[in-house]
Amino acid sequence: MHLSPLIDELIQALRCLPGVGPKSAQRMALHLLERTPDAAQRLADVLGRALAEVGHCSACRTLTEEPLCRICRSEQRDASLICIVETPADMLALEQSGIYAGQYFVLLGHLSPLEGLGPESLGLDQLQARLDQEPIEEVILATNPTLEGETTAQYLAEWLSHRDIQVTRLAHGLPVGGELEYLDGGTLSRALAGRSGFSIHQEK
Amino acid sequence: MHLSPLIDELIQALRCLPGVGPKSAQRMALHLLERTPDAAQRLADVLGRALAEVGHCSACRTLTEEPLCRICRSEQRDASLICIVETPADMLALEQSGIYAGQYFVLLGHLSPLEGLGPESLGLDQLQARLDQEPIEEVILATNPTLEGETTAQYLAEWLSHRDIQVTRLAHGLPVGGELEYLDGGTLSRALAGRSGFSIHQEK
Repeated sequence: MHLSPLIDELIQALRCLPGVGPKSAQRMALHLLERTPDAAQRLADVLGRALAEVGHCSACRTLTEEPLCRICRSEQRDASLICIVETPADMLALEQSGIYAGQYFVLLGHLSPLEGLGPESLGLDQLQARLDQEPIEEVILATNPTLEGETTAQYLAEWLSHRDIQVTRLAHGLPVGGELEYLDGGTLSRALAGRSGFSIHQEK
Repeated sequence: MHLSPLIDELIQALRCLPGVGPKSAQRMALHLLERTPDAAQRLADVLGRALAEVGHCSACRTLTEEPLCRICRSEQRDASLICIVETPADMLALEQSGIYAGQYFVLLGHLSPLEGLGPESLGLDQLQARLDQEPIEEVILATNPTLEGETTAQYLAEWLSHRDIQVTRLAHGLPVGGELEYLDGGTLSRALAGRSGFSIHQEK
């Protein structure tokens, strides 16, 4: 059941948004056309422009419409540290936490033989060039704690092992604010294995 | 914290979608640019086209890019019945239930003195012309069971009272599948007032 072919097409097109099912897409289409046509026009314009102009940073491969992204351009960042993440969203999550002040390198994916994604898709030539030219002392492997992310971290650790560079991995353990009751066995076993001494005057 | 000015603008523009907050908008923007650029391009195109072409049906005022909507064009619909709803979404909900086979009229709003919406915004001239010309015997008031919807239904009932037309209102009562425990007093009191005889061989 539909209103008209073009509205139907719009509802279908909205389904490409993550987390949007048929019911939400219908609600969005009618809302855009009926309530907020100006904002909808702006969305159509900006989306078209972003698709045409946004590419990848020539240094870290994150998404940007500029030749070099804001972080790679900055002179405030610690040039001796580089953090390797899977996606621009991961980089953004780290940036938004505000606790990291080094450089980044975005793999734009992970190793996944099932999806046909091998090492050649990760931009390692580009990473190698950076490691050769920049004063990098530590590489932080911040791939996801998933099977593919761990495999990728493992591969990168081996790929980096012949260099005189410190290679580290983000800690595994209890997420802050999480409850033991709801955590999976894998996380609990990593948290137990990585336990540390507890001092009464523990820093927060 | 942001990736680039244009991506930031896209995240802002996505906030016009109903139910999309800053975090979802960010996820959507990166997903569209990184994972599904083709679908995103299609969305930008269809949205632009829909905004340019979709207007209102000349008979029932629903959203459509055609002069007359699919339902008003149909010869299968019962011409003696007209159902008055607030929005195209309400009309779609009734259509999707598949239990109504008459005509529609869409108010494109409701009476709301607070929002400055008076009777002139409801397209009543158009409705009057239809009542004069078409063999309509019953008007079903299907405005929302909200304060504004009830006020609008009341106004329309009076506006229609001098005509020789039956005016009905959708029943109020328990929603099917709902639980008494969670229903508001208003609904319960309407359900109690509207109670009907219970026969052992009740029809389903």
